[in-house]
Amino acid sequence: MSQLLQATQPAKRPSALADRSTPFIFNCWYMAGFAGEIGRTLLARTILGRPLVLYRTEAGKPVALDDRCLHRSFPLSKSLLDGDTIVCGYHGMRYDCRGRCLEVPSQKHTPQGLGVRSYQTVERGPLVWIWMGDEAGDESLIPDIDDWTANAAWIGSRGYIPLKASYIALHENLLDLSHLSYLHRNSFGTPDYAKASFRVETDEDNGRFALLRDVVPTRLPPIWAKPTGLEGVDAARIVRSEFCGPSLHVVQVAFYGLDFPEDQRPDQMVRTAHLVTPETATSTHYFLYHARNFALDVSGVTEFMHQSLFKAFEEDRDGLEAVEAMIGACGGDVSEVSFTADRANLAMRRYLKRRAEAEAAARSVSTI
Amino acid sequence: MSQLLQATQPAKRPSALADRSTPFIFNCWYMAGFAGEIGRTLLARTILGRPLVLYRTEAGKPVALDDRCLHRSFPLSKSLLDGDTIVCGYHGMRYDCRGRCLEVPSQKHTPQGLGVRSYQTVERGPLVWIWMGDEAGDESLIPDIDDWTANAAWIGSRGYIPLKASYIALHENLLDLSHLSYLHRNSFGTPDYAKASFRVETDEDNGRFALLRDVVPTRLPPIWAKPTGLEGVDAARIVRSEFCGPSLHVVQVAFYGLDFPEDQRPDQMVRTAHLVTPETATSTHYFLYHARNFALDVSGVTEFMHQSLFKAFEEDRDGLEAVEAMIGACGGDVSEVSFTADRANLAMRRYLKRRAEAEAAARSVSTI
Amino acid sequence: MSQLLQATQPAKRPSALADRSTPFIFNCWYMAGFAGEIGRTLLARTILGRPLVLYRTEAGKPVALDDRCLHRSFPLSKSLLDGDTIVCGYHGMRYDCRGRCLEVPSQKHTPQGLGVRSYQTVERGPLVWIWMGDEAGDESLIPDIDDWTANAAWIGSRGYIPLKASYIALHENLLDLSHLSYLHRNSFGTPDYAKASFRVETDEDNGRFALLRDVVPTRLPPIWAKPTGLEGVDAARIVRSEFCGPSLHVVQVAFYGLDFPEDQRPDQMVRTAHLVTPETATSTHYFLYHARNFALDVSGVTEFMHQSLFKAFEEDRDGLEAVEAMIGACGGDVSEVSFTADRANLAMRRYLKRRAEAEAAARSVSTI
Repeated sequence: MSQLLQATQPAKRPSALADRSTPFIFNCWYMAGFAGEIGRTLLARTILGRPLVLYRTEAGKPVALDDRCLHRSFPLSKSLLDGDTIVCGYHGMRYDCRGRCLEVPSQKHTPQGLGVRSYQTVERGPLVWIWMGDEAGDESLIPDIDDWTANAAWIGSRGYIPLKASYIALHENLLDLSHLSYLHRNSFGTPDYAKASFRVETDEDNGRFALLRDVVPTRLPPIWAKPTGLEGVDAARIVRSEFCGPSLHVVQVAFYGLDFPEDQRPDQMVRTAHLVTPETATSTHYFLYHARNFALDVSGVTEFMHQSLFKAFEEDRDGLEAVEAMIGACGGDVSEVSFTADRANLAMRRYLKRRAEAEAAARSVSTI
Repeated sequence: MSQLLQATQPAKRPSALADRSTPFIFNCWYMAGFAGEIGRTLLARTILGRPLVLYRTEAGKPVALDDRCLHRSFPLSKSLLDGDTIVCGYHGMRYDCRGRCLEVPSQKHTPQGLGVRSYQTVERGPLVWIWMGDEAGDESLIPDIDDWTANAAWIGSRGYIPLKASYIALHENLLDLSHLSYLHRNSFGTPDYAKASFRVETDEDNGRFALLRDVVPTRLPPIWAKPTGLEGVDAARIVRSEFCGPSLHVVQVAFYGLDFPEDQRPDQMVRTAHLVTPETATSTHYFLYHARNFALDVSGVTEFMHQSLFKAFEEDRDGLEAVEAMIGACGGDVSEVSFTADRANLAMRRYLKRRAEAEAAARSVSTI
Repeated sequence: MSQLLQATQPAKRPSALADRSTPFIFNCWYMAGFAGEIGRTLLARTILGRPLVLYRTEAGKPVALDDRCLHRSFPLSKSLLDGDTIVCGYHGMRYDCRGRCLEVPSQKHTPQGLGVRSYQTVERGPLVWIWMGDEAGDESLIPDIDDWTANAAWIGSRGYIPLKASYIALHENLLDLSHLSYLHRNSFGTPDYAKASFRVETDEDNGRFALLRDVVPTRLPPIWAKPTGLEGVDAARIVRSEFCGPSLHVVQVAFYGLDFPEDQRPDQMVRTAHLVTPETATSTHYFLYHARNFALDVSGVTEFMHQSLFKAFEEDRDGLEAVEAMIGACGGDVSEVSFTADRANLAMRRYLKRRAEAEAAARSVSTI
């Protein structure tokens, strides 16, 4: 009976967990785009609900500005790039790469102190990071994945998936990979995956939450078995998912054959940086950087792994978008039940909620 | 002048009449689908605003569950049917046909008492009925149309029209058929239809409202004239529309030639069950079951009548959708004027309003 | 710092200026359509948020009625035109050209005093005007452009652009043409346009606001240079934009070669009536009537100028729609900065705001 009533009048989900109604976290470095995306053509991209225009100065520095011209709201991304400045495509207001208005063509005098907001950007290897917070961003907080994204011992590929789902749902997807046995049953999942033992590491102070799962013994799916040479043999698949902050999730998988003595196991690993940039409350820029530290010189491996991986990531996209649509059909606010494997997820969502609320509270104080 | 002011500030429609803002009536048997639609493939269908998944057990029993997995809101309709159970396509939660969660793959222990809501279903001939109310549904309340839908003396056809309009507007359409002369002027209407005499039967206690119209003398349109053999002669068209509850409207038409002596008139009738299942406040699953008790063995009659009838039902669809769009364009809440022929409609809408409000009040009490 | 905070918590725009949230001005003559659009086929058109049906009586008088049948909200525009009356396509209510209900087919007695609202229309040359206000409209207030739209000394062409943008943004676009150097850089703009000197004429009492800009010396773009014979020579381009009321903006341009003595300058002019009819808060019926007083008999000039002009007007459409989309993406309410060239625009918007609010206040009093 209570079950029936609950279905009629669903209880609100516990307020301690972040969800799509939680404010964005602005004081964080997010990936703005791949270095190659940002160039001398104006690029429109909405990040944390704010329409931005991205480009690169003649000297090569990435620039991010509010896309809305302060005069009559024309998109600067549909305007003209002239040297390092943007000339608004409507009435010609000229902005420099710090967003300052340099010229109002219809008058001789340009008012001082006018401009659109500029955002701090930092380029690191193939990635461009952006700081959306109000105060200056500390570059030492930029997620550091250079040791394998800018390292000749690792080779890989990259991709981008526009995702019509909440970034929090994406993090949950990545932190509990038990869904490999189901959502990815036709790609890189195996039936034993969901039942494998796991342990959780939480670092509440630093906001890092990891779930480690040892799938042993297992048979590897072709995507991993072929390049590692572990086809048709009993193997270990040692997985670590780590939420490294609102903008980054790293999944690492190590593989070895069980017939190797413990001290002779080859160090074969893949790592995927899941670079998570909220676009709106229910859509996400999902950037991916994947690399391996083996079979570096074998022809065709990179392409084979890329094709296989992105087939799986598209399964994630389809699944997360189905979830988002279902929540929308249920009115946008649903109650959920969580299980043991969600322990890291729940800690992560409580952390996001606390951090978002603390930030929102600080913002409202500073504007009094 | 008052007319002008009214146009600027339209008066609210009388609150005693049900309309698209009235809560759904849950304590009612609705048609969930045709028996043949519900099988061993998971079917997603939203009823009374609730996303459901429908399927049939291996033994053939129709099952209806909430479509949203209780864990992370994945649609069960996009999941796996395994025997009589559904295995969620995201993390593998397994549900039985009563909605009980049987397995959480990532853990050995399955929490007791968890599940999604299941809904009572009953199969009757070609129809599957569903009870959406919180308390157990009384099967004796299932609309009984077996005497002609499961009766060899009647033969017919069926159809389904997804309708982007309120189910209340559909009932009004059916209860006052004076629109046959206008909306159906090119199909089964005739000019004399709207002006024919009619009488109303209301049974407030049982919520049944009928309008009977005798179109005599008339010339039958081809859809009725051809199979009855009454082409080109003066005939009677005796029509009874009856609202039998929120989910069913039956329209019966009897035909005879006026040259038959009263005691020799053949008993030629058609009946249409208009099975009305609200999907959302402004959309309806419109199922149709049509049958006749004559020309049972004449080749081609069923197909001819089906084609002709569904051409007319599509005129209803187009008209009702135009009305719904107009109301939306006017802000969703409009004032209407009613006429004598709406007497049954007004009684029906007052009844729906009272019943919906009584039910909503009872729900809010039971959850205190 | 204050700039940063402003970006996070944008200040509301000053409330003294009309914008898309300002009520419509009903007491005004708006263009309902070109004379040729309104005929013996029912035409649906939404004006000031109200769905209307437009047609012409057998005697040729334009008629405008509320499109929603008072009975069950069927669109009269999808109904039957029978002589001068409309017969509702659903249940056959018949309305005369004043909106009075003449017949309810299902009953003998037609209630008195029922009807849909009719709107005053006046045909003037190629244009049909409509009065949307509650009180009778004064025909002497119809914008008078007959001296050049119905004058053999002027020849021209016309067009219609459905615009997904606020009518106020369109008026601003027209009153400060400094955007010719930017939005129209590839059509009829020239780089010197934005920097040319200008002066403003405001008549607050009559609600007329003009901006006059002398682009001298200049080189005319092909659209003007070719028909005037001023190709490749220094010329004057003397422009007057005038907001003549919520529904009309007239732009006049005079051209002459600088080598003409002042007393021998030919009187070569173009005029464009920008006929602005709000459809909804964020969409506008944008009618255009363009004419010239020179090269009247030269073959191909009308077609050449029409093609060139409408290419430019489509640039306006694309720009205004980009602005509207940007404002929507920013939540619908943004703060703007204005410059000296906006002086006429700001006066015009303050005037629209005052007039809309005074009208709304009068409406609420008259209905007490």
